[in-house]
Amino acid sequence: MTETLEYTLFYWPEIPGRGEFVRLCFEAAGVEYSEVNDVPELQKLLLNKDVPGIAAPHFAVPVLGVRSGHTADTHTKKAKSDAASDVQTSHQKHYISQTPAILSFLAPRLGLLGDADKLQGLERDVAAAQIHQLCATALDLNNEVHDSHHPISVSAYYEDQRDEAKKRAADLRANRIPKFLQVFQVALQGDGAGLDQKKDGGRRLWGSKTSIADLTVFQVIDGLQFAFPKYMQKLKDGGKYSHVFSLHQDVKDELKEYLESEKRLPYSNGVFRYYPELDEE
Amino acid sequence: MTETLEYTLFYWPEIPGRGEFVRLCFEAAGVEYSEVNDVPELQKLLLNKDVPGIAAPHFAVPVLGVRSGHTADTHTKKAKSDAASDVQTSHQKHYISQTPAILSFLAPRLGLLGDADKLQGLERDVAAAQIHQLCATALDLNNEVHDSHHPISVSAYYEDQRDEAKKRAADLRANRIPKFLQVFQVALQGDGAGLDQKKDGGRRLWGSKTSIADLTVFQVIDGLQFAFPKYMQKLKDGGKYSHVFSLHQDVKDELKEYLESEKRLPYSNGVFRYYPELDEE
Repeated sequence: MTETLEYTLFYWPEIPGRGEFVRLCFEAAGVEYSEVNDVPELQKLLLNKDVPGIAAPHFAVPVLGVRSGHTADTHTKKAKSDAASDVQTSHQKHYISQTPAILSFLAPRLGLLGDADKLQGLERDVAAAQIHQLCATALDLNNEVHDSHHPISVSAYYEDQRDEAKKRAADLRANRIPKFLQVFQVALQGDGAGLDQKKDGGRRLWGSKTSIADLTVFQVIDGLQFAFPKYMQKLKDGGKYSHVFSLHQDVKDELKEYLESEKRLPYSNGVFRYYPELDEE
Repeated sequence: MTETLEYTLFYWPEIPGRGEFVRLCFEAAGVEYSEVNDVPELQKLLLNKDVPGIAAPHFAVPVLGVRSGHTADTHTKKAKSDAASDVQTSHQKHYISQTPAILSFLAPRLGLLGDADKLQGLERDVAAAQIHQLCATALDLNNEVHDSHHPISVSAYYEDQRDEAKKRAADLRANRIPKFLQVFQVALQGDGAGLDQKKDGGRRLWGSKTSIADLTVFQVIDGLQFAFPKYMQKLKDGGKYSHVFSLHQDVKDELKEYLESEKRLPYSNGVFRYYPELDEE
């Protein structure tokens, strides 16, 4: 009755970007996935043309491809007892885009629901929604970081909106990042989700086990440290968000092998960019 | 075995804002809900203090309160046969924030999964993820509309960022809105989700039945017509996004009673604002 799925991540080459949030799920779970980073191939998918079995159209990558592993090579009809029997044809492939939708789809399949995995019924659904909520909050911060260097237009160069970017980045540092980090700090304090389970250290956002929310917060903090090194060091030294920085370190240790491998792409010209003039002076 | 839940929507008074996406779900489903719009009460919830049973902390409203309806008045322990038996104490109340997390939690409970409600197993999960994807895309557009009048800082006045807002709104009209509407147009063309079911008119984003994605797209188009009346009229007359405007009209008809009632708040000073200088000339 086990569902075996083949996963493909479609994302731009060379930058970690939003694809990295999906990549971290597979790496943390130790589940195999393949990648398509060929630009013409991605554009075909985004144009929603010539792709058999496409469902909802995609605004942007990352797109996750999902195919039932049992049927991939056999081309035979599924037995009724098979949990994947709802896959109608042997070659049917599903496509999902939008990072939060992909993460929420993957979480229960990859064991990334934190301690909520132990719950059932309404309690489990609520916990999954709260994990989704924390992911969405981290992804909102991710978007605000992107907008800090492109406050006027995504399609124009940074150099053409540098003055506005300086103002927006100042606001991001002064008002927005602290507000976001405070939410994660509270969630990790034991006033938040998971409650008792977290009081003995090794805290995660929903209990003591790593969830998609922890991976997402890790990646955003990691990217922020690249983009605003002076500012983030000051926050870390300040101690106000100690649990958030501990979580970042814990997840970093957990993903050590991947993070030190060649598969981990360096930050460059994606969401997280280092422009010294946007950092704290 | 039916789960009966009591729902409370926590949102700012006077503006439709992001609370409206949640409100529309209950109104479309004909399911009762109560509201808390008292500002000090909301601030208490956002500060994550003095609220018993709080779980994950909230970055912002809307927040959805969920309580098992069976136990609300009785204070008795649940029978094992009750589907809500996972609610541990009679007064336990759950809180969920982040619009996409709230909508995804509500969709299967309120019959708002479109034709995906007929599916099971992997196919249902994929369809739910695609509906989530379309919602997230519409909510991204909603956020970009907000940023068009606040490109530099949410906490500063519009009047202090009017010049930047003019540039950002011009980019929103020229590049962003058309790109978003194209995605919804394709989804409604029968190339998208739901496929055959939609070819005979009465199309919805996932099949022929209204889902959270249709409600969300409706609300964003509706708000855009308020914020950019000339521009949106031009797009409508152009005919390129005919299915999107038809969907808007269909959902408007479906929600007629609510939309014409006093419960429907007028647009004013929220996400959707009418600044003539940001509209098409």
